[in-house]
Amino acid sequence: MTRAPSPSLLAALAQLLGPKGYTTDTDAMAPWLTDWRGKYSGRSAAMLSPASTAEVAAAVRLCADAEVALVPQGGNSGMVGGATPDAGGDQLLLSLRRMNRVRSVDTAAQIAVAEAGVILETFHHEALAHGLRFPLTLGGKGSATIGGLVSTNAGGTQVLRHGTMRALVAGIEAVLPDGSIFDGLAPLKKDNRGYDLRHLLCGAEGTLGIVTAASLHLVPAAAARRTAWIAIDSPARALLLLRRLDASIGRELEGFEIVPHACLDAVLRHIPQTRAPIAAAHPWYVLAELAGKSDQALGGALERELAAALDTGLIRDVVIAKNDRESEDFWRLRDSISEAERAEGPALQHDVSVPVDLMPTFIAENPARLKQAFPGARALSFGHLGDGNVHHHVQPPVGADGAAWLAAHGAAVSRLVYAHVIELGGSLSAEHGIGQMKRAIMAELDSPARLAALRAIKAGLDPAGIFNPGKLID
Amino acid sequence: MTRAPSPSLLAALAQLLGPKGYTTDTDAMAPWLTDWRGKYSGRSAAMLSPASTAEVAAAVRLCADAEVALVPQGGNSGMVGGATPDAGGDQLLLSLRRMNRVRSVDTAAQIAVAEAGVILETFHHEALAHGLRFPLTLGGKGSATIGGLVSTNAGGTQVLRHGTMRALVAGIEAVLPDGSIFDGLAPLKKDNRGYDLRHLLCGAEGTLGIVTAASLHLVPAAAARRTAWIAIDSPARALLLLRRLDASIGRELEGFEIVPHACLDAVLRHIPQTRAPIAAAHPWYVLAELAGKSDQALGGALERELAAALDTGLIRDVVIAKNDRESEDFWRLRDSISEAERAEGPALQHDVSVPVDLMPTFIAENPARLKQAFPGARALSFGHLGDGNVHHHVQPPVGADGAAWLAAHGAAVSRLVYAHVIELGGSLSAEHGIGQMKRAIMAELDSPARLAALRAIKAGLDPAGIFNPGKLID
Repeated sequence: MTRAPSPSLLAALAQLLGPKGYTTDTDAMAPWLTDWRGKYSGRSAAMLSPASTAEVAAAVRLCADAEVALVPQGGNSGMVGGATPDAGGDQLLLSLRRMNRVRSVDTAAQIAVAEAGVILETFHHEALAHGLRFPLTLGGKGSATIGGLVSTNAGGTQVLRHGTMRALVAGIEAVLPDGSIFDGLAPLKKDNRGYDLRHLLCGAEGTLGIVTAASLHLVPAAAARRTAWIAIDSPARALLLLRRLDASIGRELEGFEIVPHACLDAVLRHIPQTRAPIAAAHPWYVLAELAGKSDQALGGALERELAAALDTGLIRDVVIAKNDRESEDFWRLRDSISEAERAEGPALQHDVSVPVDLMPTFIAENPARLKQAFPGARALSFGHLGDGNVHHHVQPPVGADGAAWLAAHGAAVSRLVYAHVIELGGSLSAEHGIGQMKRAIMAELDSPARLAALRAIKAGLDPAGIFNPGKLID
Repeated sequence: MTRAPSPSLLAALAQLLGPKGYTTDTDAMAPWLTDWRGKYSGRSAAMLSPASTAEVAAAVRLCADAEVALVPQGGNSGMVGGATPDAGGDQLLLSLRRMNRVRSVDTAAQIAVAEAGVILETFHHEALAHGLRFPLTLGGKGSATIGGLVSTNAGGTQVLRHGTMRALVAGIEAVLPDGSIFDGLAPLKKDNRGYDLRHLLCGAEGTLGIVTAASLHLVPAAAARRTAWIAIDSPARALLLLRRLDASIGRELEGFEIVPHACLDAVLRHIPQTRAPIAAAHPWYVLAELAGKSDQALGGALERELAAALDTGLIRDVVIAKNDRESEDFWRLRDSISEAERAEGPALQHDVSVPVDLMPTFIAENPARLKQAFPGARALSFGHLGDGNVHHHVQPPVGADGAAWLAAHGAAVSRLVYAHVIELGGSLSAEHGIGQMKRAIMAELDSPARLAALRAIKAGLDPAGIFNPGKLID
């Protein structure tokens, strides 16, 4: 168990970090004590905002000696309450936002070193200014920070080609629970000195170490793209199409998202200035995108493949964006699904993954299971088919009191969804993490062997439990 | 501390595993109690050879209850004594060689599940029989097993394009130190349920878990290749050439190895039926190879780029193999370096990595440092320049009594080499691991923060220390 911070500890932290790095002001802390979706709120005796790795390490040493808990936070744009302290007020908020320097950009090696507080969008611009691109992107790019993205192994829409954050992290600098600094920034392609701390810290949600900086892979800027909106019968056929594009186009295929008609319909009804790229209604749509160095490099591969797919009846229809504005319009349909759905009323969101091949099975079978157990329940799956990751949202029956229905059945609905995912060998968190939100359900449904291993690692590295307690694993 | 196996434990193991799975016969055990290079020898009360994951788990449970140590072993072809028990005789040898089934090959998903005892070369053939390829390959492919390759995060000559074993492992099944089975075989592209056990077990050298099977990524079979033997002034220029080929050819570039003239010269003198592809002597050579689905796919890109490099003076000369036999001849020069060097007399081998950009610096500066400290010492670097990984071999002065010189200076020479590597942010084990051989030097030279974290992980997951004690980390 951790302790409450004593006045002398708080005074030592205030002195260490100075007025810019330490506050107990309620108004200043307020925006950071509730997660952006408003689901989780906490209290904190103070917010620490160190300006350097050395300051983070010194603050951690003080807290480690006092056995006081720290909750690291980047842009506060996580989806599972992973950066929100508990209600007790004894956990100190540790903001990394002041550590916002891009320390270096090596254009020859295509590696940049960014501190934890660098905002993703800022980092995108920095890479572009060097003729390069950082390919990971997601909705929260205007607030999400490098440290948070590393600590949550963030995903997004470009994972198909570039992988999750883990694949883009070439090195990590972090402060460990005893206040020591792990300097693993050197971007080594080969390093077999035992347990890989980089991969262990990536996705650990700040429970094993405070990521203070990362070496990140950049790729050549993509000057050209082709975006297609495709009508198709089913996710199974979409997967066939993906395999075909993979085989013929391969590396240039960056995006492959599926959208059911009901989602498109909700977007068209609720989001102003949207229109269907294909006028007729079809059961499913695929949004596919190629990106490359030049129009020449992309050639006419997408057009050729889709024409062939139309000929053989694999797809029902297709429109290829004529220009960047049309590409953006297509993406806006995809990116507005969550907003449109909110306008439809309350729903339960599940971010799940299964092996790619089994995704059509899950999408086809889960709604039937739900309907049988919860008559009238409506399930919609959309998103990253190529990653085996869909956002699977369950809406109350038409005409039901949504909030009441969710209060009565929500937990059981989610349990049914997650149990199905696990039955298919999948994960109950594909890209959002565990945080506070999924800790209990993971402890209930995940394999005892895996859970015991996670607890053993946590206990080994953070025996006093001062890093982000109450998140991920006990 | 672990204990000696009691007669009742040995009887229980014999009964569990049956006559094929249990032996105490000295002759049967002998080949497995000395590493293949003959550097490390041990003793063992019994060799266990379970035939299934369930048998491994049951054996581990028996040993865990008795606090008896297990030394997992695959093909016994490691480079650092990681699979050899100690001399005490109390550690039981756990051979995974009987678990040699390829459980499945999914050609659509390009994933195969192979048990730990499958030999790499056998797995290559199995993949080819399905029109696919498992791209990791190395000298010991005729004996190295999947379990060992995973547990050591093996490298080899195709890392430039396909990464080390880690990048090819889509899932892992392992038995943990309490005898529980971690079933992580499902090949999930996204899985954010906390600490990544797959990445933790990969490269852990059997100290945290016994890998019993792995899901492995396959790639399309490569039907065409282009191999070039290039004469060049220096590793710095070779790196420039690599960057240029990377930018223009990119993904098809599979191999990029450097060879100093002294290494080629030794090969020509000691290895029968070898000849220099380029008659004149040059300071350095590069062996570059492209592989692709078809001749058409490879086009003339390599020829064009190398012609341009010749025009600008970046390279001194080049010969492109006219056929597969010439390609093999080029590779034979590279692959015979170690054998030729052995014929030259004793030498100290160092498998080290630094950030790719710093590799020319290391290769240029280390021999001078060595000569200053140890007059007459000769250093040769060759290998995987594109991975920032060279095999850096130090030979005694010409005319010296090699064995005596190495006995007197070997440890200090290695310490100088490793200290230089660490100064450049590198790793004292690029691809061979730590095992017994580098445990002491790592404990001496590596960062205390990293070492403490490794020890904490080991203590958390294997508190009794029964998995491969005396290897990697205490």
